[in-house]
Amino acid sequence: MRSGKMESVYNRIQDHRLQDRVVSAEEAASWIQDGMTLGLSGFTRAGDVKAVPFALAKRAEQEPLKVNVYTGASLGSDVDKLFAEVGMLNKRLPFQADPTMRKKINQGEFYFIDQHLSHTSEWVRANVLDPIDFAILEAVSIREDGVIIPTTSVGNSMVFAQHAKSIIVEINLAQPELLEGIHDLYEPGKQGERSPIPLTKPDDRIGSMGIKVDIEKIKGIVFTNQLDSPSTIVAPDEETVIMAQHLITFLRQEIKAGRLTNRLAPLQSGIGSVANAVFHGLLDSEFTDLEVYSEVLQDAVFDLLDAGKVRFASCCSITLSSSKMEQVFSNFGQYRDRLILRPQEISNHPEVIRRMGLISINTALELDIYGNVNSTHVMGTQMMNGIGGSGDFARNARLGIFVTKSIAKDGKISSIVPFVSHVDHTEHDVDVIVTEQGYADLRGLAPRERAELIIERCAHPMYREQLREYYQEALQRGGQTPHVLEKAHSWHVNYAKNGTMLQKVVQHV
Amino acid sequence: MRSGKMESVYNRIQDHRLQDRVVSAEEAASWIQDGMTLGLSGFTRAGDVKAVPFALAKRAEQEPLKVNVYTGASLGSDVDKLFAEVGMLNKRLPFQADPTMRKKINQGEFYFIDQHLSHTSEWVRANVLDPIDFAILEAVSIREDGVIIPTTSVGNSMVFAQHAKSIIVEINLAQPELLEGIHDLYEPGKQGERSPIPLTKPDDRIGSMGIKVDIEKIKGIVFTNQLDSPSTIVAPDEETVIMAQHLITFLRQEIKAGRLTNRLAPLQSGIGSVANAVFHGLLDSEFTDLEVYSEVLQDAVFDLLDAGKVRFASCCSITLSSSKMEQVFSNFGQYRDRLILRPQEISNHPEVIRRMGLISINTALELDIYGNVNSTHVMGTQMMNGIGGSGDFARNARLGIFVTKSIAKDGKISSIVPFVSHVDHTEHDVDVIVTEQGYADLRGLAPRERAELIIERCAHPMYREQLREYYQEALQRGGQTPHVLEKAHSWHVNYAKNGTMLQKVVQHV
Repeated sequence: MRSGKMESVYNRIQDHRLQDRVVSAEEAASWIQDGMTLGLSGFTRAGDVKAVPFALAKRAEQEPLKVNVYTGASLGSDVDKLFAEVGMLNKRLPFQADPTMRKKINQGEFYFIDQHLSHTSEWVRANVLDPIDFAILEAVSIREDGVIIPTTSVGNSMVFAQHAKSIIVEINLAQPELLEGIHDLYEPGKQGERSPIPLTKPDDRIGSMGIKVDIEKIKGIVFTNQLDSPSTIVAPDEETVIMAQHLITFLRQEIKAGRLTNRLAPLQSGIGSVANAVFHGLLDSEFTDLEVYSEVLQDAVFDLLDAGKVRFASCCSITLSSSKMEQVFSNFGQYRDRLILRPQEISNHPEVIRRMGLISINTALELDIYGNVNSTHVMGTQMMNGIGGSGDFARNARLGIFVTKSIAKDGKISSIVPFVSHVDHTEHDVDVIVTEQGYADLRGLAPRERAELIIERCAHPMYREQLREYYQEALQRGGQTPHVLEKAHSWHVNYAKNGTMLQKVVQHV
Repeated sequence: MRSGKMESVYNRIQDHRLQDRVVSAEEAASWIQDGMTLGLSGFTRAGDVKAVPFALAKRAEQEPLKVNVYTGASLGSDVDKLFAEVGMLNKRLPFQADPTMRKKINQGEFYFIDQHLSHTSEWVRANVLDPIDFAILEAVSIREDGVIIPTTSVGNSMVFAQHAKSIIVEINLAQPELLEGIHDLYEPGKQGERSPIPLTKPDDRIGSMGIKVDIEKIKGIVFTNQLDSPSTIVAPDEETVIMAQHLITFLRQEIKAGRLTNRLAPLQSGIGSVANAVFHGLLDSEFTDLEVYSEVLQDAVFDLLDAGKVRFASCCSITLSSSKMEQVFSNFGQYRDRLILRPQEISNHPEVIRRMGLISINTALELDIYGNVNSTHVMGTQMMNGIGGSGDFARNARLGIFVTKSIAKDGKISSIVPFVSHVDHTEHDVDVIVTEQGYADLRGLAPRERAELIIERCAHPMYREQLREYYQEALQRGGQTPHVLEKAHSWHVNYAKNGTMLQKVVQHV
């Protein structure tokens, strides 16, 4: 392998001390022992390592091998799927989004820690977690001074590299060299010893272009040549278009009230089709000169950059559809001075989010009449993906906005229920709710005020009467947050038994 | 009134332009109109205004008068009690702790917004809430340059003063003049326009000694002479002493693991007897040279200062028992260079809490087998006090610790339940749980691991088998967070029906 790639080796490994460390993925994987802990690059299908995990999974098919895997967020390239299928995981954190992995998590086959994405680095730095034996990181190149240049995501790569005993680098020739220079790697230092993070605007540069490590720790370098997995994003549909319109109506009200200008405030949007559609809705708006300070840039942000609507975007990962990826990376020169990629603890840092006063838009799985949001657990028990950065953002943002369609499964599920079956965002942290029915601005409202607004403005008409009945019965019992506890989860129980949350159907059964 | 107090007037109102604005409480109260919004000083019974609220309540007894009342936190001097009794409130935020007010809130007589204590100032600054007509603030004095010197709490006084249309100052002659100089008033500015908060250690001074306002806004000055209400703290009992020991055992483990030194990290403790007892437990520990960065300083912190265990304490309010108040304020000179009082948005700021890596200790009302915490709602519906600062701290601290006795009401209530009846702190934010039974370190654990640890280490033995049965039944159904949703709140329902959470009693009924 080494000889045929000499030109690439010299181009992409500028530190000559490292040039003889190029190995095959199989050799690198052979260093990993049963019981070890791995820190992998990768955040929402971008910038993940694409060779060593496969070689490792192959070993795990033939010998007893279980590892802990820490990542930035979800991995692409079917790595999470494969790890789950092979059964080689002991513990996985802090996020995933793969259907096979999801199934295995819910079957209890391995431990999954669903964590705020800004928090993992603190645990690594403070030695709370099992120490990392190998950091395995995708890179564009390793520079002369031994600095590793990440690819399409930064994730937790820096903290993994700094705290791992050893490092394996995958240099991916399919990742454009023009990525070099768009990263901004800032290390805040230990809690109790750190200075303020000197970041006040999305386009501030406060760190270095790559990850500086002790080069003795770089045990091997593997070459790959494979694009990131494209995002699985679904195009806007009629309902997500309407939701975007409601959100824009709300933002216009904020401008009218003098709380925003038509430059808005730095925008964050969660991963997924709804959030992407909402961003897409900004294309035809009067808002201008926008800034994005987010975790993940999806297709819509590049459309907004193309349209001159967004002037600058800071993120921790770029996750695009197949066609968008081709367009963006073949013309990357026209984007790179308007982009910064940061570590996820900086993109998601409460300090920075609160300071800038972001407008934060994330997707809810379900929410209740008092504004508590479930982002993670289907019917209270089955993990979907994880909380991701939604908690980092919603709690600290100027506006914590949650979007969801008001019903799911053709109306068999109401996304608005009496009492959410799992709480990821409490009533204290949810400012605005948007469904295709309308929006509810919950700021400054007590629970009883919120309930009426959410039911009348956001719930689907087919469930409104049922919600009103619950609320009226709860009101009879009183309290700051009235509930009929024995019925609080009855909608979920009804769904489990009868396949619908609609009570009338129950009466027929 | 004016003539008899001339000496005090000159001493305490150094800005001569203001000396003719001294009025009676009745006159000041007469300016307040039905429908207005008031911003009052006061945080956990300290530094509240003591005359104008009474004069206002008297008016409300005789004429239609309803107002919105924003404060720092709970008011002392029976003001919250009186406001609730008279029925003069439309909306109250962000915290209270009065039994009468609690009752009226739960009866739905007025709207109560239970808010993170660091968040109110953002809403005021951004004009999200109804604008403040009058800020009514207790002061030690008004200095030559028109700067208002707060008393035993800072709370939200600065942001109220800056944003109110008019200001009424109550100069309290009973508050020691030595308080001047211990405040540090820092205004972060608007979101999106602010710089990093330059605070890296509890003893950093970053602001001014008082609240600078446009003196034209000071409409009247009222003199009072009345001590703060003493705290209602209960002395440590056998169980809280044991809880303190468990916490100390945990902290020793952290030192052993190299994650802390015996100087620990800046400490925060919530209000209340349990938290105070836990702090008290540090008196006999080997920990030394401690720092406190908290909301409220209670008796125990002054004992720790006396013992030389605590070297410096930063807070937003000082709330003491009667005897401690006398001791501290008659010898205030020996404390004042070891204390700083800050606005609550700074004492509770996520930026500062995360940077310093606080050890945060707060009280849970109940918690569940997966580590979700209810801090506010008895049986899910009845407001106790409010979330206070617990969410500001737990989410951002190095260690988010929650303490609670494992049972309440002689065992009729288990503080550890299958599913909390209200969520204030999610599984993502709770690191360590301490009861008199032991402690559970939840960091790095998946829900299934947490459940076993919480049940076996923290639950009361009389409820352990019942919790195990629930958990085992839930496990049969699977999921990342196994539950039997139709039974998730059955313990609370059982208590409502049968006066106990114990199932065996149900079987007899």
